[in-house]
Amino acid sequence: MDRERFKKQIDFIMEIDKEKNIFRQNHITDYIRPENDAEHAWHMAVMIYLLREYSNEEFDVAKTMMMALIHDIVEIDAGDTYAYDAEDSEAVLTKQAREEAAAERIFGLLPENQGNELKSLFEEFEEGKTPEAKFARAMDSFQPFLLNNANGGKDWKRHGVKKSQVANRQARSKLVSEDIWQYIKNLIDVNTEKGNIIKD
Amino acid sequence: MDRERFKKQIDFIMEIDKEKNIFRQNHITDYIRPENDAEHAWHMAVMIYLLREYSNEEFDVAKTMMMALIHDIVEIDAGDTYAYDAEDSEAVLTKQAREEAAAERIFGLLPENQGNELKSLFEEFEEGKTPEAKFARAMDSFQPFLLNNANGGKDWKRHGVKKSQVANRQARSKLVSEDIWQYIKNLIDVNTEKGNIIKD
Repeated sequence: MDRERFKKQIDFIMEIDKEKNIFRQNHITDYIRPENDAEHAWHMAVMIYLLREYSNEEFDVAKTMMMALIHDIVEIDAGDTYAYDAEDSEAVLTKQAREEAAAERIFGLLPENQGNELKSLFEEFEEGKTPEAKFARAMDSFQPFLLNNANGGKDWKRHGVKKSQVANRQARSKLVSEDIWQYIKNLIDVNTEKGNIIKD
Repeated sequence: MDRERFKKQIDFIMEIDKEKNIFRQNHITDYIRPENDAEHAWHMAVMIYLLREYSNEEFDVAKTMMMALIHDIVEIDAGDTYAYDAEDSEAVLTKQAREEAAAERIFGLLPENQGNELKSLFEEFEEGKTPEAKFARAMDSFQPFLLNNANGGKDWKRHGVKKSQVANRQARSKLVSEDIWQYIKNLIDVNTEKGNIIKD
């Protein structure tokens, strides 16, 4: 065993424990408390495994699950940026630079080959071009959508979210599965009729 | 799309959100609060991916990650049983029956083929015989061990845990990697010397 290599792996494993303290804007079932990034990633990975049959394209399941599990690790340093923050807000404008620096530091804790591998996975997710990244990104949006819907849209109402914003965000699903998109589209309509999402 | 099938998959995905409210005996970094099952499963799956190179045997990574992600879902109904509860305690004696009933109900929410698949994955984990189950079980114990160690052994002290108990529990690692076991064995010795674990 290369002890230095193993120590780096353990250092990274302990560092990412902090993701359990990064809270998101959406809440868990029954609106008990905000969800954290580790829980969100766990839920996404299970969804990837269970819903992969709906993907237009074949993809590597282990790679996509790992992509989901690590896609928010940069938020340990960079914090959570809300999906519906304004395009010209401070948070959105500085997001990329903050996340790049975080990726350097956190993935840099790993042995070089694994650090590079995870950093590439994260970048692939952000670019959203491969079948793996497209499916992971669809689940990244679909997972909190399901929680928002189950919670009577409280988080949408709290933030005054508009129908066009939700539809634009969830359009990620259209790229991977017309069936999942139609399911979401119907629920957007239902929530708009109920006044949970603002009609625009 | 088979709408009934999709509805079952979504029902299961929403049901398992409750795992975020099942709290364990160990705490997250800095002893801020107890860890929940979803966070533990997320952390284990990342460890499986990163530490798979130390396994004696080759194993299916996607299968093992999914096994980790779902292995505690039964606790939604059956509750968490502490690793160091006495063998003749009510919790330990009734654990298997409670978890079997929970597996029937919760995995039964899924379409039949996926419900059977996940129930089998869970049973394979419990039996601990395949390379996938052995590695997942090693990480199931190693993950809270690392947190306990980082937290100055507060949870071991709180429960008056003995060295033989920790060694027996962590011996799961011996089955998959002599290297990981030696690393753990050394930390058990260190924590026993510090009085975090009771010498017996």
